[in-house]
Amino acid sequence: MSSTYGENIRLSIFGQSHSPAIGMTLEGIPAGSRIDFDRLYRFMERRAPGKNEYSTARREKDMPEFISGLVGDTVCGAPLTAIIRNTDTRSQDYSGLRVLPRPGHADFTAQMKYGGAQDYAGGGHFSGRLTAPLCLAGGICLQLLAGEGISVIARIASVADVDDEGELSESLAEKSFPTVSDKRGALMRERIAAARAGGDSVGGVVECRVLGLPAGLGDPMFGGMENRIAAIVFGIPAVKGVEFGAGFSAARMRGSVNNDPFCVRDGRIETLTNNCGGILGGITDGMPLTFRVAFKPTPSIARAQRSVNMETLEEQTLEIRGRHDPCIVPRALPCVEAAAALAVYDALLGRKKEAR
Amino acid sequence: MSSTYGENIRLSIFGQSHSPAIGMTLEGIPAGSRIDFDRLYRFMERRAPGKNEYSTARREKDMPEFISGLVGDTVCGAPLTAIIRNTDTRSQDYSGLRVLPRPGHADFTAQMKYGGAQDYAGGGHFSGRLTAPLCLAGGICLQLLAGEGISVIARIASVADVDDEGELSESLAEKSFPTVSDKRGALMRERIAAARAGGDSVGGVVECRVLGLPAGLGDPMFGGMENRIAAIVFGIPAVKGVEFGAGFSAARMRGSVNNDPFCVRDGRIETLTNNCGGILGGITDGMPLTFRVAFKPTPSIARAQRSVNMETLEEQTLEIRGRHDPCIVPRALPCVEAAAALAVYDALLGRKKEAR
Amino acid sequence: MSSTYGENIRLSIFGQSHSPAIGMTLEGIPAGSRIDFDRLYRFMERRAPGKNEYSTARREKDMPEFISGLVGDTVCGAPLTAIIRNTDTRSQDYSGLRVLPRPGHADFTAQMKYGGAQDYAGGGHFSGRLTAPLCLAGGICLQLLAGEGISVIARIASVADVDDEGELSESLAEKSFPTVSDKRGALMRERIAAARAGGDSVGGVVECRVLGLPAGLGDPMFGGMENRIAAIVFGIPAVKGVEFGAGFSAARMRGSVNNDPFCVRDGRIETLTNNCGGILGGITDGMPLTFRVAFKPTPSIARAQRSVNMETLEEQTLEIRGRHDPCIVPRALPCVEAAAALAVYDALLGRKKEAR
Amino acid sequence: MSSTYGENIRLSIFGQSHSPAIGMTLEGIPAGSRIDFDRLYRFMERRAPGKNEYSTARREKDMPEFISGLVGDTVCGAPLTAIIRNTDTRSQDYSGLRVLPRPGHADFTAQMKYGGAQDYAGGGHFSGRLTAPLCLAGGICLQLLAGEGISVIARIASVADVDDEGELSESLAEKSFPTVSDKRGALMRERIAAARAGGDSVGGVVECRVLGLPAGLGDPMFGGMENRIAAIVFGIPAVKGVEFGAGFSAARMRGSVNNDPFCVRDGRIETLTNNCGGILGGITDGMPLTFRVAFKPTPSIARAQRSVNMETLEEQTLEIRGRHDPCIVPRALPCVEAAAALAVYDALLGRKKEAR
Repeated sequence: MSSTYGENIRLSIFGQSHSPAIGMTLEGIPAGSRIDFDRLYRFMERRAPGKNEYSTARREKDMPEFISGLVGDTVCGAPLTAIIRNTDTRSQDYSGLRVLPRPGHADFTAQMKYGGAQDYAGGGHFSGRLTAPLCLAGGICLQLLAGEGISVIARIASVADVDDEGELSESLAEKSFPTVSDKRGALMRERIAAARAGGDSVGGVVECRVLGLPAGLGDPMFGGMENRIAAIVFGIPAVKGVEFGAGFSAARMRGSVNNDPFCVRDGRIETLTNNCGGILGGITDGMPLTFRVAFKPTPSIARAQRSVNMETLEEQTLEIRGRHDPCIVPRALPCVEAAAALAVYDALLGRKKEAR
Repeated sequence: MSSTYGENIRLSIFGQSHSPAIGMTLEGIPAGSRIDFDRLYRFMERRAPGKNEYSTARREKDMPEFISGLVGDTVCGAPLTAIIRNTDTRSQDYSGLRVLPRPGHADFTAQMKYGGAQDYAGGGHFSGRLTAPLCLAGGICLQLLAGEGISVIARIASVADVDDEGELSESLAEKSFPTVSDKRGALMRERIAAARAGGDSVGGVVECRVLGLPAGLGDPMFGGMENRIAAIVFGIPAVKGVEFGAGFSAARMRGSVNNDPFCVRDGRIETLTNNCGGILGGITDGMPLTFRVAFKPTPSIARAQRSVNMETLEEQTLEIRGRHDPCIVPRALPCVEAAAALAVYDALLGRKKEAR
Repeated sequence: MSSTYGENIRLSIFGQSHSPAIGMTLEGIPAGSRIDFDRLYRFMERRAPGKNEYSTARREKDMPEFISGLVGDTVCGAPLTAIIRNTDTRSQDYSGLRVLPRPGHADFTAQMKYGGAQDYAGGGHFSGRLTAPLCLAGGICLQLLAGEGISVIARIASVADVDDEGELSESLAEKSFPTVSDKRGALMRERIAAARAGGDSVGGVVECRVLGLPAGLGDPMFGGMENRIAAIVFGIPAVKGVEFGAGFSAARMRGSVNNDPFCVRDGRIETLTNNCGGILGGITDGMPLTFRVAFKPTPSIARAQRSVNMETLEEQTLEIRGRHDPCIVPRALPCVEAAAALAVYDALLGRKKEAR
Repeated sequence: MSSTYGENIRLSIFGQSHSPAIGMTLEGIPAGSRIDFDRLYRFMERRAPGKNEYSTARREKDMPEFISGLVGDTVCGAPLTAIIRNTDTRSQDYSGLRVLPRPGHADFTAQMKYGGAQDYAGGGHFSGRLTAPLCLAGGICLQLLAGEGISVIARIASVADVDDEGELSESLAEKSFPTVSDKRGALMRERIAAARAGGDSVGGVVECRVLGLPAGLGDPMFGGMENRIAAIVFGIPAVKGVEFGAGFSAARMRGSVNNDPFCVRDGRIETLTNNCGGILGGITDGMPLTFRVAFKPTPSIARAQRSVNMETLEEQTLEIRGRHDPCIVPRALPCVEAAAALAVYDALLGRKKEAR
């Protein structure tokens, strides 16, 4: 099933870019949990469009309406459902996509799968807009995790060829462009501006950490934290890679370097290094859970591109009109946090079943 | 749930390194499917230990016994269950692990999760030995896929700092060390031998391709091919990263370079490049599905390592006895093929439901 | 998870009696399927309140708004989501229920489960109103089944002590009180009127048949058609029993009478009798699938009842104000049809995966 | 998927009547749980064949071998897998079934579903023998429930036209023919003997109670205790009906009689009657959970029956050789207890997730 995630919670996301509304249902949140809506909306605003020079001009209120699951601000046990109206849905902009698929988008594969029935307007269900309900659900889990002393933080680790510097150790949520090094952040923004000026786009990497996790979360084999996080993170459009801890670098290391030696700190077993990203055998070891997510450059670019008319099989040149984010990484960052929060909260509920 | 995978098939893996047996149950294989056992066992032998200088000396028959699901060599509709006896299970080698966890292994996290009830002998359910039933299940799917013209091929893309050269285009299954370039393969083996000589180990990367896939497999969002493949591949021990197509490299590209232009070849819509790894919006586009999997170096090394006695909280030095693979990548390669086959076959069955 | 059903489709129902809206998400309907909305709304009206003397005076438009999954009237592949606004939600009528649970309702058990966080207004998520989205989803499946020559028909088999007469063989959908025998129907209505006059209520039985089913649907063991149908039918409030074919009567028969002998009719293998209700080993045999569903009498009655104040633990007398259906069976009947349609359609999609 | 059950535990049953072995995998049992094997085997013996005059002469050791999930007698966290060898598998007795389906059995529907690939020997995966692993899994849950003060008891409520008398209030596990009234039990045995003498068989009803349950177990809608129990109980061969509390009788009652008034006993809220079977809104109310299960008469009878040759479409007379239970109810009774234990234990684990 396409749009459902979770074992102990169940998230279901619905809607298309230009359907009457988008939204989500989240089951499994314990009754009695309270939601801080101001905080939730502030979190959601971090992925909202139209906020700065790097994002699309599409402006929407994007205020969710909770239609199920609450009494006041308290979760009542019924499934939590919220919808967000699509108010700015000029479908005519997309009529050309019906036959001429955009490279890097799902237009062609949707046609192959749905045989013409797909909603091609604005990318339909494949639109990045569908990350709004993901952030809504994840934002709720972030609050519940905070109540257990667990926090999720992220940074832009790279944009194009520019890497951030310094260690990620506390939340950068207040920053509009969340890098540890402001200088590096400025360089990244130059790369984005240059891409935009050239009718082009750039990709980047988001690094995410979950702090305050107890050891013992997750399951062996297919229920590992890596499996759970990857299974949701690849649901964010444009993600093409996920690595945990040292990740692909570990593949170039020797075991004597990559293995994280155990030590005792403050009467607690920790590891001296954290190349494993806080996960051994799929299960958290109590160190920060760390992972990195690769985003491809925005596929919508102003430059002319080669495509093929799906009806006539003629090769044609495609020009995408409208304004598009030259780099989605800043807006994708809270989506990664949301995804991590959902995966971790799910595992946390699973942990409760194991207590004897 | 830890050890279950699949939506249209359901794979369940059971057993511990030193329990009476390990095995798997696979539900959802269409009745009437025939299994070529010779071919299946040949496939499984590719991951078997004790085959060459790079693998452990533990030798077992590892012949599966099918106890359910077959009439002769034909799938009858009941769940397919096969078991593999553990015949060489000297638990005494592992008695020290009860209190002194091995760095890079699940000993510590299993203790945190199971509170001492875990089977620490040989890594228990976390043992690499559990990939034998994975290969058993995947080997069956490989045969079923072959019947639909779909093949899964893989190579060792790198070991330590040595990268393979050339393009992966056909099966290297006959090679005992499957690299495209034999010269590079020889260099990699040198790295492995050097690591072993130094009481150390090395990691590497496996690259996998699925050829002959129809366009239209997979689902949007959490049901994407990336999500499905990642969710199973991270179930192979020591995997720390997965990337599709250009993966992390795409994050450094511009959109105009990374986007794969559509073209017509032999009357069929294809893409000129394949940076997306054959997947757009989670759905196959008919080009080869390509992904790369990062394996950390074998955590079991001969060198002394720092650990902590979990009972006394004293820091101690740990020396791991016994022989261990200085590089698991050669034996992990068929596991990646098996995992890919399972994920793809599951998606293929899902596709059948969509036909009207 | 409470409110989710299905293996090849996935139905998720949300909302409370007095939340802003109720609704459903249905995944897995093949793209390109068309919905006849007039027919769908006519079906939904059969369970709508306020239609006749036997149902509550609560009047609502109950017109669903589809917010996801459609392009025009065609399913586009995204999850189908529809919401129905709650417009007549006078919560004050229910304020007493917070501490004084109504016998036969979920007020007490919801308090035990949710610890006071539950939405007690109108029964919250337990309200019979939540069968509206069930009928919405089921109504869609009914149309898709009709396209395959499969129909679902039902009758009121009994109300109180009055049984219907005659064999159910064609749809009674046009009847406002669907019994085969009008005379028996009139008697049942007398029983309902008498109950109402006495400030009381009556229960009854709905009999349902699925016609035109191919042989071979369903799975052995926990995937049997009985399991699937029971698992959804008990989701309709007030259902306390389900039996297939001869059901509980079979338990009093001899095998020589209960066994359905095979015969050939029109060149096709059928059975002479149908005590098995068209299901053997969980799998359809091509005869009509028949089952009966027992509904308890409406728990909301005008008469004074004994209850206990959950805060003070004092026994108190409860009087339920407002008007309530003295018999829910007529409105429950389309819910049974909807549930059957969902279960059967799910099994039908499952069948497609088995084709080689 | 056919043979899998559970949300918080996952039970998977495999094997055929005449395959090398049958067995089960049970995931989700908390590590550290201890199994009393003597007690488990005593429970399993209650459904074993060949014990008395009412059951088949097929005698097997039926001793399970645990191949995964244990260290000694303690659950270690890996999936629990046990197999039971099939040692008495004379397939020649069944060769005729390939073309001539037995009335009341799954021979015909299996042919329709599996197209000839099914294992027809001994009923294959549809055999009542597959209830042995069900009892194995359920027996483990019964022990875990007992540790929480929860017990599951059952009786033969009726055989043919003879009903038991008296109230079921304590375990009848010591009785070889578990009725409350020994006199009624003797009458039932007469009916069974008479059926056998006439080459025929009889059905019956099993009543089951779960005592000691906390209030608050189960979920609304499709996650109700009725849904969960029905979904597993219909997995026992020959079950054709399930009712909770007053069940089908409730459909003939008035609300004022059927509603269970709340009262206070020993400082605890209870109900004066228990027509709801301890379940309101799908959730336990703390009273005994009661349900009844209808079993059809054994379909294998000595008398000649009408059948149809599936190859030639000729109507033929079938005579079933071999000895068969003239009444399966006594052996089915522990299966009902096992099924109840699995469903309740699953719900109990689910309850743990809800705690804040």
